[in-house]
This record gives sequence, structure tokens and C-alpha cells, in this order.
Amino acid sequence: MSKVAITDYPVHALIANRWSPYAFADRDVAAEDLRALFEAARWAASAFNAQPWSYVVASRSEPEAFERVLSCLVEGNQSWARHAPVLALGIVRETFAHNGKANGTALHDLGLASGNLLLEATARDLSVHQMAGILPDRAREVFGIPDHSRALTGLAIGHAGAPERLPEPLRERDLMRRERRPLRELVFGARWGEPAPLVKE
Amino acid sequence: MSKVAITDYPVHALIANRWSPYAFADRDVAAEDLRALFEAARWAASAFNAQPWSYVVASRSEPEAFERVLSCLVEGNQSWARHAPVLALGIVRETFAHNGKANGTALHDLGLASGNLLLEATARDLSVHQMAGILPDRAREVFGIPDHSRALTGLAIGHAGAPERLPEPLRERDLMRRERRPLRELVFGARWGEPAPLVKE
Repeated sequence: MSKVAITDYPVHALIANRWSPYAFADRDVAAEDLRALFEAARWAASAFNAQPWSYVVASRSEPEAFERVLSCLVEGNQSWARHAPVLALGIVRETFAHNGKANGTALHDLGLASGNLLLEATARDLSVHQMAGILPDRAREVFGIPDHSRALTGLAIGHAGAPERLPEPLRERDLMRRERRPLRELVFGARWGEPAPLVKE
Repeated sequence: MSKVAITDYPVHALIANRWSPYAFADRDVAAEDLRALFEAARWAASAFNAQPWSYVVASRSEPEAFERVLSCLVEGNQSWARHAPVLALGIVRETFAHNGKANGTALHDLGLASGNLLLEATARDLSVHQMAGILPDRAREVFGIPDHSRALTGLAIGHAGAPERLPEPLRERDLMRRERRPLRELVFGARWGEPAPLVKE
């Protein structure tokens, strides 16, 4: 199963090929690959090089640890994510370590780190489905996340599987064509809302 | 000038090669390349596929537009970013269009989009230096950004240049080795702060 984006302009294959499946194959992720995913996240850019990201991660080969991460997802996500071989939480540090002040781009920078992780996954024929539907308070309790940080995202990681085995409506979602707003609705020139000359034609 | 990350585990060349220069070469960015950068951003993942990102962009071939973007950066960033051939602002929509409710991962998802842009840039031998130091109120005024959105980041885009031409301390920063916290300080297992078995050795 692959779902290549139908782009208006050519982009790198790693971007066109990345998508977020609900179905995962019954196949473990090699430790070497998993390490590379987090190593990729590690090298993202961040404001003041603060690196305001951390992760908790568990493979299903560690059933107790896996269940603990799973319990931090909302029920709707638990239903499909429990079949992924690896689960993780993306955690953001919202204050700077050096002065305790609010880091206004911390969430953005976690996005950069997880974006690197997604790219590395795609390069290794792995898929990642990120989730906003998690239980941050439960994650804080279960994993002892300190006050300066909080869990923001869930990540299901594995090899994409056959959508045919999914219940509806997930099956339909996995088979759906990927859609995005046109470029002229997001790249502006003189005013917000007015397409940049670059994307006008 | 290139600065390949010295990684502990192998990662894709596009991740190892990406870095944020202060010095840009005196060379324009082809419109085709620039379009591909934003097309890459367009195809990022987002919660509910809300795509809470937009950009304003200007090339120095449009001097008036370029100055307007430049004026939305803090002075310290204007000093070096004015030499980049292209400037942009990353804008985040903080509420969902479909129900007006707060989008808790909007900033994160702008990070995913800009991360794609960075990757596409690296693949095209371009460099991007993102900035948290911008003037969001000025950007709102200058570009008419609506209340549901705000400028979060600045982006200087171009071909990396010779650091020798930079004043200190920027020169030193461009020549500095890239550093990150070790993986065991950001990938946790049973508890936040305890390295995952995966990264323990």
C-alpha cells in the first residue's frame, strides 16, 4: 500500500510518499531503524538551539511499556494504534532551560523534530501516524513528565498494512486520495489572502 | 560551505546536511525551486487535515515587497537576513476553520510544514534559516493577517554563502560545529528522564 501525493509541482519523493496510515503490518521495527528515527528528530533546528523535544517510546515486544503508552491515547485512537508495533509520545518543553521563560516556538520546534522523524521513517519504508488525540494529564502521571513539559502528540510507527483489514470508517480513510488546499490559498504576496506572484498562474 | 552533522546513528543525508546559515550567496533562487519549497510544505500532515499554515513570501527582485517582509523581523535578524535572496513569514491559524475552536497542535503542524520546506530546500542545494525573532503585530498590520492567524516565524531562503564575509559573532556561529543533546537525554522508556532501552548502550 502506498499513496503518492498528486502534487502541482514536483517535490522530493520522501515528501510525496509520506502519509499516515491507520493500518499497520504485523511486522516489528528493527531497533536500528527506530534509533535512526529519533536520531533524525534530534538534529532538527530550534530557536536558540533549545531542542525543546523529548519522546517516550515503547515497542510491543515490551507489552507492559506498550500498554502504558497506549493508555495515554484517546479511545478512538487506541482502537487502531494498538496494532502498530511501536508507540511513542511527543513531549514539548514549554520553557527555556536557561532562563525559565516561555518558549514561544516550542510546539513548532517539536513539529520540526517529528517532521525529521517522519522523513527518516519514509526513507526506511516505515510509516508514522501522528495523533493530536492524546491524554496529556494521564501521560504526565504515567511517565512522570515534569511541569516544564507536556505530551502533545502520539506517534504510531510501523510498516503500513492492508487497509482491507480495518473497520469502517478507517478503511475508507486509508483508501481515500490525499487532498490539500491549493498552493495559491497558502502562499501570499502583498497581503494575506492574495496569492504571491510565484503561485498565481 | 557545508556542515554535515556528526550523528551517533546514520540518518538520511537530507537530515545530516541541513543547517541554518547566516551567510547567503549573492545568487537568486529560481522560481521553480521556490514553488517546490512551498509545495513541499503544503503536503505536510496536520490534525484533522486542517493545514493551519500559510506564508507570505518576497524575493529581492521585488524590492518593495522584500522590504515589507524584512521590516517584520527584529533588528538583530534584519542585519543578516537582508542579504538573503528570499524572505518569508510562517503564519499559523490557531483556530479550526470548521468550528472556530482552538487548534492545540497548530504551531506543531506549522513546524511539520516548514520542516518539509527545509527538506525540499536541502534537496535543491538551498538553505533556510528560520527565526523566532519576528514582530507579529507589525506583520499583522503590514500584511493584514486576520485575527484567527498570526506570524510565528521568519524564513531566510537562499544558497549558503561564505561565512568569512559575516561580522562577528555571526561568522563564528556559521563556522561552529553543530551540537545536540545526546539521544539518551531525549528518548525515554519507563519514565521521563530514563533512557529507553533502545538508546541505553
